[in-house]
Amino acid sequence: MRVEVLAIGTELLLGQISNTNAAWLGQELAAIGVDVHYGQVVGDNHARIVRSLRTALARNDGVIVCGGLGPTQDDITREALAEVMNVALVRDEELVTRIAGFFSSRGREMPANNARQADVPFGASIIPQARGTAPGLICPVGNKVVYAVPGVPYEMSEMFERAIAPDLKERLADEGMTATITSKVLRTWGTSESGLAEALNERFDVLADGHLPVTIAFLASGIEGIKVRITAKGDNDAHAQELLAAEESEVRAILERNFGDIIFGVDDETMEVAVSKQLLKRGFTLGLAESVTGGIIASRLVDVVGASAWFRGGVVSYASDVKFNVLGVSEGPVVSPEAAIQMAVGAARVLQSDCGLSITGVAGPDQQDGHEVGTVFVGLSVPGAEPSAVRLQMPGDRARIRQYSAISALDLLRRALD
Amino acid sequence: MRVEVLAIGTELLLGQISNTNAAWLGQELAAIGVDVHYGQVVGDNHARIVRSLRTALARNDGVIVCGGLGPTQDDITREALAEVMNVALVRDEELVTRIAGFFSSRGREMPANNARQADVPFGASIIPQARGTAPGLICPVGNKVVYAVPGVPYEMSEMFERAIAPDLKERLADEGMTATITSKVLRTWGTSESGLAEALNERFDVLADGHLPVTIAFLASGIEGIKVRITAKGDNDAHAQELLAAEESEVRAILERNFGDIIFGVDDETMEVAVSKQLLKRGFTLGLAESVTGGIIASRLVDVVGASAWFRGGVVSYASDVKFNVLGVSEGPVVSPEAAIQMAVGAARVLQSDCGLSITGVAGPDQQDGHEVGTVFVGLSVPGAEPSAVRLQMPGDRARIRQYSAISALDLLRRALD
Repeated sequence: MRVEVLAIGTELLLGQISNTNAAWLGQELAAIGVDVHYGQVVGDNHARIVRSLRTALARNDGVIVCGGLGPTQDDITREALAEVMNVALVRDEELVTRIAGFFSSRGREMPANNARQADVPFGASIIPQARGTAPGLICPVGNKVVYAVPGVPYEMSEMFERAIAPDLKERLADEGMTATITSKVLRTWGTSESGLAEALNERFDVLADGHLPVTIAFLASGIEGIKVRITAKGDNDAHAQELLAAEESEVRAILERNFGDIIFGVDDETMEVAVSKQLLKRGFTLGLAESVTGGIIASRLVDVVGASAWFRGGVVSYASDVKFNVLGVSEGPVVSPEAAIQMAVGAARVLQSDCGLSITGVAGPDQQDGHEVGTVFVGLSVPGAEPSAVRLQMPGDRARIRQYSAISALDLLRRALD
Repeated sequence: MRVEVLAIGTELLLGQISNTNAAWLGQELAAIGVDVHYGQVVGDNHARIVRSLRTALARNDGVIVCGGLGPTQDDITREALAEVMNVALVRDEELVTRIAGFFSSRGREMPANNARQADVPFGASIIPQARGTAPGLICPVGNKVVYAVPGVPYEMSEMFERAIAPDLKERLADEGMTATITSKVLRTWGTSESGLAEALNERFDVLADGHLPVTIAFLASGIEGIKVRITAKGDNDAHAQELLAAEESEVRAILERNFGDIIFGVDDETMEVAVSKQLLKRGFTLGLAESVTGGIIASRLVDVVGASAWFRGGVVSYASDVKFNVLGVSEGPVVSPEAAIQMAVGAARVLQSDCGLSITGVAGPDQQDGHEVGTVFVGLSVPGAEPSAVRLQMPGDRARIRQYSAISALDLLRRALD
């Protein structure tokens, strides 16, 4: 089965935004075994959208159209779909009510324009919205299909997972393409992509001849670490799972042998979730003192549902005398291991938590206390151990230094609690 | 003059990398007045590359092909170009020497494969490499042109600026098209995209007949608000700037009349930068007390270079008794206007700042203190005014509620300081 992604929006052609939707969909389509041969982008122009849709339909079994479902006059995907399907647009009054409800739940009246979002090409079915106002559409065109989803990435991905992926899988099954593809992501923090690749070379050699339907890929994910994605294709789910599990244990053994405990989670398990699991297991609560990261660690932790069970809070001690007065740090250089330790101990005391985690450093643009930009000290105070500090050197600009520092500090806490 | 970007590479279709080249080129092409109507991506397949090239040539004056110029067997852009030009590939021995020199200057021998990079379609001219090994190509096809550049962004952009942009400008001048395009982004917070569109309908009506070379577009940017982009095309830079300024004052007047002070910045000016400007203007420092946002506001503010001049720090009071013990909030419901006011006042006191900004609310998944998910109270303590609280109702899931709350709170502070 072959599918093409057609992204709609003049803002994409003008480069005001990057076409990240196509990349995301490309990954997801590959993961379920759908082939992608081409990708297209077209501006907000009726004739061109129609032409691009026809081109895509002619050379594929299905098309995913992203964007142009908004309420404004330049959102014309619905009209183009109706023309390609050779049907009329029909306003769905139930949808109008639902969209109006979205506004009234926020104490606002629906602008008249938004009613356009309830126009549905005759014969199309609706993918209800879960996060915005524009419904998605599933449009049959002969024996082919066009899926239309909003261009907003977070609405698009939700609709793909909930409605499009299951529909595609059903079509694959109908065609007797019952091979099951399954994959697992091992999330690592602490080594480079080329380091991982070199260590895993022995597996690439084994897999190179293709006798095992298993692949390994890397996905550098910035502040989320480097992901190692293992994909296996089996005759059925049990077979695919078996192949996947075998490869996973090979990969885990190699990474453990080369780098120690660098796998902090699997699939969607973020570093903050890994930390929360360790804290819950040990029955500890946590308090933070953040300087250079300025609240990034706290905001990542609060993102974990149920954080109130183990997260007490934090002090963002950006000004030096907040470190002295609120956290009880001794006057002196605030970018130092001593200051980091006193911040961690102070955070645990002020916030009445079992553990204290602190971070102080230089994000730039200027150096500070004789330390170059990128120098960071992480302080740890954990029951049963002497408070300690670790010095890290972070690459990149101000934003990267702050983000990398935050995940590095969480990783140090994760390892300290292990 | 119309140009299309054709990106080549299976890794793009698989979503292993994002097509950032197309976005970058889109911006550059718009800036010199070249129109872009479509964009294409195709995998490493000879027949498909040829087909995509022909499609692009048929509907444009020029094509920029990115990628497929590397040394390996799946780099087949050169062969596809020769087929479309209907000429042979000729190895350029001077180029072979130059590529070999690139390797020997690094103390390495040129792998045999790299000689392929010296194959040039007969009749094409070369864009010498400045950063890598793959030369770019300028290929005449009838009265049209195909530019081929490497897919590595940093090689691509250098070649575009050095060789392609000047060539395009010459072609534009030959056609007597010396127009300059300029644009400005007005950043808004506080109304919906459809609300903005409805208010600006009168301008769309004026601009619809095309007598003014000015366009208005919206860009929903999630937690960064909604951007209104005004673009003007003039005979020269001064003319374009004049048209832009005139349209900007029309748009500003309409938005002011309909929504008040919703434009918080222009172009790259974020909400945190807007807040920092107000604080610097008034000579005030700021302290935060964050509950539901858990450090998001602090981390946005610390991202502003020079934040230490006005940002004291914050207390992330996630547990209720941190609100009571550290900030001095009276025991009782912590999601209330009273608690928000006490948090703001407490933050200013504990952190010794002039202004206090606080936020408390329910991000879910469960309701709290009788308030439904999405209810948020923002507390403000600003010199010369009674401390106050504002109630907001936020849409979306946990992450969105937290992010929207953060920018909304900053916007309230910005307005309070105005």
